[in-house]
Amino acid sequence: MNKQILLIKRPQGMAADTDFQLVETVIPTIAADEILIKNEYVSLDPAMRGWMNEGTTYIKGVGLNEPMRAFTAGIVVQSNNINFAVGDAVQGLFTVQQYVISNGENISKIDTKNIPLSWYLGILGMPGLTAYFGLLDKGQPKEGDTLLVSGAAGMIGSLVGQIAKIEGCKIIGIAGGKDKCDYAKTELGFDEVIDYKNDNVAKKIKELAPNGVNIYFDNVGGEILDAAMINLALGARVVICGAISQYNDAQFNGLKNYMKIVSARATMSGIIVFDYFPRAEEAIKDLSTWLTEGKIKYKEHIVEGIEKFPETLRMLFTGENYGKLLLKI
Amino acid sequence: MNKQILLIKRPQGMAADTDFQLVETVIPTIAADEILIKNEYVSLDPAMRGWMNEGTTYIKGVGLNEPMRAFTAGIVVQSNNINFAVGDAVQGLFTVQQYVISNGENISKIDTKNIPLSWYLGILGMPGLTAYFGLLDKGQPKEGDTLLVSGAAGMIGSLVGQIAKIEGCKIIGIAGGKDKCDYAKTELGFDEVIDYKNDNVAKKIKELAPNGVNIYFDNVGGEILDAAMINLALGARVVICGAISQYNDAQFNGLKNYMKIVSARATMSGIIVFDYFPRAEEAIKDLSTWLTEGKIKYKEHIVEGIEKFPETLRMLFTGENYGKLLLKI
Repeated sequence: MNKQILLIKRPQGMAADTDFQLVETVIPTIAADEILIKNEYVSLDPAMRGWMNEGTTYIKGVGLNEPMRAFTAGIVVQSNNINFAVGDAVQGLFTVQQYVISNGENISKIDTKNIPLSWYLGILGMPGLTAYFGLLDKGQPKEGDTLLVSGAAGMIGSLVGQIAKIEGCKIIGIAGGKDKCDYAKTELGFDEVIDYKNDNVAKKIKELAPNGVNIYFDNVGGEILDAAMINLALGARVVICGAISQYNDAQFNGLKNYMKIVSARATMSGIIVFDYFPRAEEAIKDLSTWLTEGKIKYKEHIVEGIEKFPETLRMLFTGENYGKLLLKI
Repeated sequence: MNKQILLIKRPQGMAADTDFQLVETVIPTIAADEILIKNEYVSLDPAMRGWMNEGTTYIKGVGLNEPMRAFTAGIVVQSNNINFAVGDAVQGLFTVQQYVISNGENISKIDTKNIPLSWYLGILGMPGLTAYFGLLDKGQPKEGDTLLVSGAAGMIGSLVGQIAKIEGCKIIGIAGGKDKCDYAKTELGFDEVIDYKNDNVAKKIKELAPNGVNIYFDNVGGEILDAAMINLALGARVVICGAISQYNDAQFNGLKNYMKIVSARATMSGIIVFDYFPRAEEAIKDLSTWLTEGKIKYKEHIVEGIEKFPETLRMLFTGENYGKLLLKI
């Protein structure tokens, strides 16, 4: 049998257990050119909250009573496709269930000889590429720049900071609570940290970046984004990656200080990782090198059991996880 | 004697008559290398509202009990500076009074043989340069693009639209009321107009730009900016020039739909005309040519009498003026 998680209700605010249903169906049968994949890991990403809403933004919302969308990694267990053999490890945008079918398009065959399968959902997968291209392509870091990143103890924020450090930036991270701040400073090498739960964020940014912030990489939105805006340096680049503080709010908190873009001669743009899939190799090559050289630290937070999907998803928004959050099926 | 308008109180909301004082002082005496200018025209610009606030944005706020800052144009009436002769016409960032002194730095000598003096405060001055560089440098129009501009019957909006048309764009203007919309369509050549006082702006943009807006040039902020944001085309450029709908509000209305920057792969930047003063000649050359060829229409709205400064300034915000608003001293 095939266990799957269906989206059965559109969440109001934070996703509830009752918005999902765990069902069992028969394992699907593959047609010509198709492969059957047994999923081993499901990636939990803030973007999922948006996918649960009706309508289309950069991607269509998940249909009601359909399996919840997710990036997953697994092993090919049946193949009618000459490009894939049984035993191959693959990764792609699938759904939260034990078995998925693919015609082989838009999935990546991955090398698990030296690298754990799960890493392809994190540092060498979508979040890794988001951090890499969001920072390097959109943020355009230069040696001596001051980079500020929110969600600094999270998957993307921690990576953005570490890559910026490699590029010669001073890195300031914003995270929630003493533990996460300590982790960012001692483990991840942030030069400075701001605890948004205890500090006056705007004041603290000003203190730590007296000449202003050259790059602000935003994972959270809301008041922290506004606090960063008023501290932009001339010519700053603001990269919008996410707005995790806002996804569960019915009333999306706007950006009050957007006029600072004008006075700071700043630019604001966003990062959609799908646009960079054709360039994935560049990122994977650099990230693997940095990992091997010990220049980047990477941490996973793995929860076991497909039935724990709803509560694991919520951890992203309550900030309970350190590093990359995954569900092991 | 020299009549001058002092800023004596920081306005709360809309600037009131009582925020200013008309005083008479002696005509100042020039020192070595200085010139005395008799101002003929004062430019009324939305940016003035920001200059009246305390603190510094891209420029310092006007000090209390000091003459109000303004772009003015006038004639040299005394000169101790070898670069300026009595009778020369000049333009610069001065103050609202009959006579001002300059050491000749940061002012432009202007040619009034073929062009009226007042035009150097409008189409060939700061607002003209703002529209020109804001559109061409920041907006990057391409043939076939759809340009949307707010304040379409105003000084900057009307010019942005007309330049975009020359560049081969479809131009859609937003203005307030039937008269302004008719003026934008029949006189200025806008392809389509939206009356924000009577239309559902977001719905109307969608209807008139079914494939989205490639360039949105914003002069107003507030709900109109949000309505434009949700209608951005992929790769759109948002150019923030001003936020006239918000300058008088204590509670600045934020930008709700900023996440559209991400999904539309858009960029947002602002235009500060001061940055383009070194390139003024480019703009003046093109704009003069277009005026001569009849490709651009230009309209002035002139109010007479320095004592009318406060009420004339308010016209900008109540939307009573068509085209460039000036005070004739």
